[in-house]
Amino acid sequence: MSGRIEGRNPVLEALKANREIDKLFIKKGGIEGSLKKIVHEAKRRGIVIKEVEKKRLDEMSQTGSHQGVIAMISEYKYAQVRDILDRAREKNEDPFIIMLDKITDNHNLGSIIRTANVMGAHGVIIPKHESASLGAVSAKASAGAVEFTPVAKVGNLSKEIDNLKKEGIWVYGADMDGDRLVYDADFSGGVCLVIGSEGEGISRLVKEKCDFLLKIPMRGEINSLNASVAAGIMMYEVAKKKFL
Amino acid sequence: MSGRIEGRNPVLEALKANREIDKLFIKKGGIEGSLKKIVHEAKRRGIVIKEVEKKRLDEMSQTGSHQGVIAMISEYKYAQVRDILDRAREKNEDPFIIMLDKITDNHNLGSIIRTANVMGAHGVIIPKHESASLGAVSAKASAGAVEFTPVAKVGNLSKEIDNLKKEGIWVYGADMDGDRLVYDADFSGGVCLVIGSEGEGISRLVKEKCDFLLKIPMRGEINSLNASVAAGIMMYEVAKKKFL
Repeated sequence: MSGRIEGRNPVLEALKANREIDKLFIKKGGIEGSLKKIVHEAKRRGIVIKEVEKKRLDEMSQTGSHQGVIAMISEYKYAQVRDILDRAREKNEDPFIIMLDKITDNHNLGSIIRTANVMGAHGVIIPKHESASLGAVSAKASAGAVEFTPVAKVGNLSKEIDNLKKEGIWVYGADMDGDRLVYDADFSGGVCLVIGSEGEGISRLVKEKCDFLLKIPMRGEINSLNASVAAGIMMYEVAKKKFL
Repeated sequence: MSGRIEGRNPVLEALKANREIDKLFIKKGGIEGSLKKIVHEAKRRGIVIKEVEKKRLDEMSQTGSHQGVIAMISEYKYAQVRDILDRAREKNEDPFIIMLDKITDNHNLGSIIRTANVMGAHGVIIPKHESASLGAVSAKASAGAVEFTPVAKVGNLSKEIDNLKKEGIWVYGADMDGDRLVYDADFSGGVCLVIGSEGEGISRLVKEKCDFLLKIPMRGEINSLNASVAAGIMMYEVAKKKFL
């Protein structure tokens, strides 16, 4: 469910038209001429750029004339954070948002969107960089939830948290060193749950922005859960407190 | 982390020595001579047998002389249900067991073993047939939990439930049409949680054996969770009631 745009002019046009580009592949070595312009524009818009061997581009190319650049475009439409907030308002509910910090596994992303839908969250926020993105794999793992639950992609999670706080939303980070147990949290009012990557957890800057750090109690030899399982338990607790 | 045994005599020896065989690949068409004996013995022991083209066996073969049979052996040691019950006893706790009915995805199996460890379950029971099994993928997804949390493989889940009931264990099935919400369950005493496959849920015969059918409340357009997320939420509720 993802398409590609090949060649310098087509990619430049797509950038100008503000099309949703997941990733830009540029041939390694010697970014010259209009490629420079493309890279500049892509960087400005925060698009992930990968330099690869020309051979790789040749293999990826469907037209045979990539001219050193292929843009992967998403056919899944990302929402704006505003859309997520509107969705809560329309339902006359306090916003319930999931923010994912560097979840890079597409299966986990899809599974989390699915759980978000089931638990009544209004949307999911992911970062532009270092994140899995909406595509065939995540859509499948979401069991169709990507069609219902909006996903917004933002440049800077910390800044976005500031915006959410201005909307009166409380920000809860899932953290195994958290100072409070997840079932002790109140979750009244607007809620943003922040879930970090399995390896690193929530990044420092984002963690510092959280109003609360919540932990899931653990009793075994293993001291972490799969990100989508941890997210599921946190969302379940929010849903239980809010809706039941 | 899985090996293979090739050729008629080596496979027959492995069967006699009661080695843990995950799957037996037999060449399609004309099971003759000692292959008959192998198939008979494998069936008796409830080993999954797959008939495949000779070409496939040639590709799988590491020795070049498979003689029409290759056995995939697991290097992960399965436990007995008895071991799981003993583990509970040693800890002086009521047994807390997870039973998986036809979870065929290795990632889900691994993730569930991981969560089982984190939530203090004493072990996991899977069926011999139609199940993912312990191997490299599930071990990785378990984040090492396979080394700590015993997994037992049984021929017949319904019969095993009867055995568990004799031990005074209550059996709770996760079912979206369940008559009771998961957080309303008591979970005192011994607990066996039964989790079904995503597509089909718990199979009818197993479901009929459950003492309770519990559901997770759902509020979205999507009406099912990923099996490992659903299992995670159920286990979390048990752990909360039992240990906290």
